[in-house]
Amino acid sequence: MNLETPALIIEEGQVRRNIAKMAGIAAACGVALRPHAKTHKLPEIARLQIGAGSKGITTAKLAEAEIMAEQGIDDIFIAYPIVTEAKLERLATLSRRINVIAGVDSLEGATAMNETALRRGVPLQVRLEVDLGFGRTGVPYDHALELAAAIAKLEGLQFRGIYTFRGFFMNGAPTLELEAAGLEEGRLMVELAERMRAAGLEVRDVSVGSTPTAEYAARVPGVTEVRPGTYVYYDRMQAVLGSCTLDECAAAVRVTVVSRPEPGRLVVDGGSKTFATDVGPGAPPLHLIGYGHILEEPDAVLERVSEEHGMVRVPEASPLRVGDVLHIIPNHICSTVNLHSRVYLQDGGQMRELPVAARGAIT
Amino acid sequence: MNLETPALIIEEGQVRRNIAKMAGIAAACGVALRPHAKTHKLPEIARLQIGAGSKGITTAKLAEAEIMAEQGIDDIFIAYPIVTEAKLERLATLSRRINVIAGVDSLEGATAMNETALRRGVPLQVRLEVDLGFGRTGVPYDHALELAAAIAKLEGLQFRGIYTFRGFFMNGAPTLELEAAGLEEGRLMVELAERMRAAGLEVRDVSVGSTPTAEYAARVPGVTEVRPGTYVYYDRMQAVLGSCTLDECAAAVRVTVVSRPEPGRLVVDGGSKTFATDVGPGAPPLHLIGYGHILEEPDAVLERVSEEHGMVRVPEASPLRVGDVLHIIPNHICSTVNLHSRVYLQDGGQMRELPVAARGAIT
Repeated sequence: MNLETPALIIEEGQVRRNIAKMAGIAAACGVALRPHAKTHKLPEIARLQIGAGSKGITTAKLAEAEIMAEQGIDDIFIAYPIVTEAKLERLATLSRRINVIAGVDSLEGATAMNETALRRGVPLQVRLEVDLGFGRTGVPYDHALELAAAIAKLEGLQFRGIYTFRGFFMNGAPTLELEAAGLEEGRLMVELAERMRAAGLEVRDVSVGSTPTAEYAARVPGVTEVRPGTYVYYDRMQAVLGSCTLDECAAAVRVTVVSRPEPGRLVVDGGSKTFATDVGPGAPPLHLIGYGHILEEPDAVLERVSEEHGMVRVPEASPLRVGDVLHIIPNHICSTVNLHSRVYLQDGGQMRELPVAARGAIT
Repeated sequence: MNLETPALIIEEGQVRRNIAKMAGIAAACGVALRPHAKTHKLPEIARLQIGAGSKGITTAKLAEAEIMAEQGIDDIFIAYPIVTEAKLERLATLSRRINVIAGVDSLEGATAMNETALRRGVPLQVRLEVDLGFGRTGVPYDHALELAAAIAKLEGLQFRGIYTFRGFFMNGAPTLELEAAGLEEGRLMVELAERMRAAGLEVRDVSVGSTPTAEYAARVPGVTEVRPGTYVYYDRMQAVLGSCTLDECAAAVRVTVVSRPEPGRLVVDGGSKTFATDVGPGAPPLHLIGYGHILEEPDAVLERVSEEHGMVRVPEASPLRVGDVLHIIPNHICSTVNLHSRVYLQDGGQMRELPVAARGAIT
């Protein structure tokens, strides 16, 4: 295949190995695995994950879930508060077709969802999002029991349990001790579930874990499910965090050197429209250097990007020249995938082009 | 129109005013206007610009030019070095259909292009990119005459002239004196063109100017063309730079408050997949606060983003609640448009959905 650059290439063999490894961890711990599909955005990869034992998938947005459902994925957790009438109508419609669970983190949101459920005559399954200190969505931990009790009373909703995304920060400080972080994440959520049960609530799901913490959180008795996403491809951020090695990274962007204006600098044909900038150089807790890891020239640094230009600092003696091809593991693969209309799946000598079905599905 | 959020809304009346204003500046200075289409990525807006007097458009990548050409745009400058054989073939094919000029900044690139031109029997028009200190692509200023002389000897190429993108930095230091920067940009390029002419080269095009510098660079006698892009919509970065007022910004992202976990924080349904992060908080020379300007609550700060979450710091007394709708002018509109599969053109009470035709056209 005459591949025009920049192009995002996925090594299918490595994807299968990454899928098998995480499936093995979940199985060994006796927890369900529900991978976050935001990383790949591809029904085809979701099917590989389910084929390897995943119970279903996770998405962030309703639109992603709709696209996955159209392609036959029939068990989806939407880990996001859905609060507007139009989206709640769509959720009710989706709930008639497949098994779907939605996130909720406020009484206002739960009340609106309950009204839709009652009006449409569709019971809607929910999990309460709990914030362990990341400071995103999620009810603060200390208010979770009270809110869960209020939600459980809403007749149109089926209260399923609780979930969290811990993140890499606690109270603004980086967490690099993944094992301790994962164990604490699991323990806090199981303790909360126990308090809810003591108060008379039925809590079936205790869902935790992202790629760096899943394997540790899964070990905590009482955790029922983990939701890692990035592990399917991994990326440079995960390698720096210690979740994987660079060899386990299954995705790299192929670029071409288009200019070498001076001995110490070359320019490649991918910039901020090719490499995500949401995890950039200097981002704590990673202290990343540059926007990606250049496989052919590990000492070179992709130090600046504009939309279509990537400026690479190279040793002056580097033999790289205009027309040369490089492969770069991006810092953050999920948002990088979101920039690409298509990816190229490589399996040995074979390469297939796949449209990124759920790219840009933000509604 | 029942608009699901997040959604990128474009005020068509303001777009027309922005287009008319820049067209007036170019006409008054007697220079051609060739807007960079990377901002809107829409053939429909390109036609508005041409209808208001633009000579043609500029694109960064060949794929953008191909999409614009398919939609009837017939005069395009691709301001990017095209160096690989496959892309040069596409360039030759495009050159048979429309008037196209390509960028070049190295002898290797020019030589490869020359070979394609001779093999295909299609003369290819080129402009030499000159770097005034931005440190991206472009031959260093002091080497430009020598390279231009070498390119002009290549029989398959038509050497048209020179162009530059000055950027907001010179030698790593921010430039906020736009008038001085624009005048210098024009003067340096005209002086270079004169030296080339004195050496016997024909230099028809002296093309300069981005949105912040175009109106000043256009005043320099000898400049023949300006290439602003962002002015069509403007954005918060341009407002901070002083190129426009916030009132002139024609594009805003409509978002919904999905959570208010504590009095001082709310979360909206757009994050780094909705707002570009390549010009983020603290980016010099802008010293921007947050990822955008929130129209309904100017004192609130969109201070953190993850892919689908935008964390907004609000005054504790703010009455905003779950379900409320906000409009946010993004820091950088060009890369923000690139995240959206569609935009919504608003003209008075009418709203139309338009696919972003050249979104993600990075090859």
